[in-house]
Amino acid sequence: MKWYLVASLLTILTSSQGILTTLSQTNGKYKYDYATIPFLAEVFKLIVSSVFLWRERKKSPPPKMTTDWKSVRLFPIPSVIYLIHNNVQFATLMYVDTSTYQIMGNLKIVTTGILFRLFLKKKLSNLQWMAIVLLAVGTTTSQVKGCGEASCDSLFSAPIQGYMLGILSACLSALAGVYTEFLMKKNNDSLYWQNVQLYTFGSIFNMARLVVDDFRGGFEKGPWWQRLFNGYSITTWLVVLNLGSTGLLVSWLMKYADNIVKVYSTSMAMLLTMVLSVFLFSFKPTLQLFLGIIVCMMSLHMYFAPPHMLVDIPPAIKSDPESLVNVPVDHKTDS
Amino acid sequence: MKWYLVASLLTILTSSQGILTTLSQTNGKYKYDYATIPFLAEVFKLIVSSVFLWRERKKSPPPKMTTDWKSVRLFPIPSVIYLIHNNVQFATLMYVDTSTYQIMGNLKIVTTGILFRLFLKKKLSNLQWMAIVLLAVGTTTSQVKGCGEASCDSLFSAPIQGYMLGILSACLSALAGVYTEFLMKKNNDSLYWQNVQLYTFGSIFNMARLVVDDFRGGFEKGPWWQRLFNGYSITTWLVVLNLGSTGLLVSWLMKYADNIVKVYSTSMAMLLTMVLSVFLFSFKPTLQLFLGIIVCMMSLHMYFAPPHMLVDIPPAIKSDPESLVNVPVDHKTDS
Repeated sequence: MKWYLVASLLTILTSSQGILTTLSQTNGKYKYDYATIPFLAEVFKLIVSSVFLWRERKKSPPPKMTTDWKSVRLFPIPSVIYLIHNNVQFATLMYVDTSTYQIMGNLKIVTTGILFRLFLKKKLSNLQWMAIVLLAVGTTTSQVKGCGEASCDSLFSAPIQGYMLGILSACLSALAGVYTEFLMKKNNDSLYWQNVQLYTFGSIFNMARLVVDDFRGGFEKGPWWQRLFNGYSITTWLVVLNLGSTGLLVSWLMKYADNIVKVYSTSMAMLLTMVLSVFLFSFKPTLQLFLGIIVCMMSLHMYFAPPHMLVDIPPAIKSDPESLVNVPVDHKTDS
Repeated sequence: MKWYLVASLLTILTSSQGILTTLSQTNGKYKYDYATIPFLAEVFKLIVSSVFLWRERKKSPPPKMTTDWKSVRLFPIPSVIYLIHNNVQFATLMYVDTSTYQIMGNLKIVTTGILFRLFLKKKLSNLQWMAIVLLAVGTTTSQVKGCGEASCDSLFSAPIQGYMLGILSACLSALAGVYTEFLMKKNNDSLYWQNVQLYTFGSIFNMARLVVDDFRGGFEKGPWWQRLFNGYSITTWLVVLNLGSTGLLVSWLMKYADNIVKVYSTSMAMLLTMVLSVFLFSFKPTLQLFLGIIVCMMSLHMYFAPPHMLVDIPPAIKSDPESLVNVPVDHKTDS
């Protein structure tokens, strides 16, 4: 399977995720407990991966599976990072408003590039670094509030702790991604076996969260397993299936492509959601959305196009007798 | 003289132009007739160029000067294009508001690239085209109105004639630039002789405008030459000198560099003016100004940096025994 097909599918599904989540609300509220969604998605991914692994084990050669504790103990780490990340996110939102939080979220594009370079030792060209910065600038541009929207001086007026926590949040998010890529690529183990380990721990951590919520709420609504599917509709199930599927695609990309591909997929999904919202939810298109899309498209082309395609100057067309004299200046080399 | 030093000087002077013009106002109004400024600037450029030409003619070898009518008759053409452009500009402003007009003005960056390619037969790489589009996107981004500024639905709600005229205006502005470059480069004539021809016609056309204004106003304030310096202050004279100097620098760039260099200079000047306005006129900085500056800087680097510097991947650092296995996917070539 080609990586760009998987990446495109991830873009479409991630974009549907936002739209399905909005559609699953009743009068702008969730009738179900939202914390049950990631838990069920983890369980879904665990089941799918287990089935695939079981089928793979019946074939020959059998899949490569490293089962010693020294390897298995690394697999809860992404879940632990996400747990810390969720708490930092919660703390950040005590200092900044949601729109500033959303804008700062684009920082994770740049932090992913940096950690990708530092921890995975991947080299990027000057142009690819510029592309990564432009992707972050483009997504941010598309989110700039238009006239009449939101309050005016929210963005630069949050307390310093808000910005520091925003940066920490971007680093943790990047770290989780880069660490997962490291896990998936560190040996030639079967993807399904690696997934089974990841999602077993993922399910446990998400279940723990439901239990903690129950304790915090004093079991007012009963234990989580008794109200797991309360308020679920067909759309809610679609949200679970969709979230689970995007998770499986991300795993595939982490093993066979990389974090940068994933970052492009999800950034494009964000723009696609905004464009679809114009049609589906009568969201008003802004000039900045249009400008942001152009910047992101340029960035995509800069990052992935073969370098010779970008820098080659087209061959000279036949010289015109009326054409200009050559002036002794060439600004390409004279710098 | 290096082209980039001239270009930097042009950026600084163009940026001062906006600031000096604001400073030359008294309570937000001009006490002098603004139409006298470009006329005097043309006369200033004519005098300076004549002096330089006169000095050049005393040296040996004498400067190359083509004086036959077939060549001289081409020099009023830029003035004619600017005359048409001014009228189209006036017509455009009857359909669109000034902020939409300003946003559409960035189109001239792209039209200059296109006419530069078509008429001067200059080849640009894929990356350079992207850089030009990004420059236009970056300058536009910096001008996006923030919350609370201006009316909300002005940009997409003008009549279609407004947009058509805006595009025509961008084409005329690009055509004048590209035609001037053609004039300056079509032979090895002395720059000063070419300038003398350009500015003689420029002075005549600008004088004609003052006369037409007099007729339109029914000579209420007397003929233009009697009130030429009315209301002039030191700052007004600085505006004239500054405008004349930028004109001379543009001429130099048209002969020894090109239109794209000029477009970068003036776009950077626009951003510099906005940054200086933050300090000088307590202009409120916006997120979009910051984003626009990043995009324009990236564009500058993409256009002018040597291609190998952009696309080369840094040499591999010594291989780490703990580093990752090579997965059989390379997203650079698999496309």
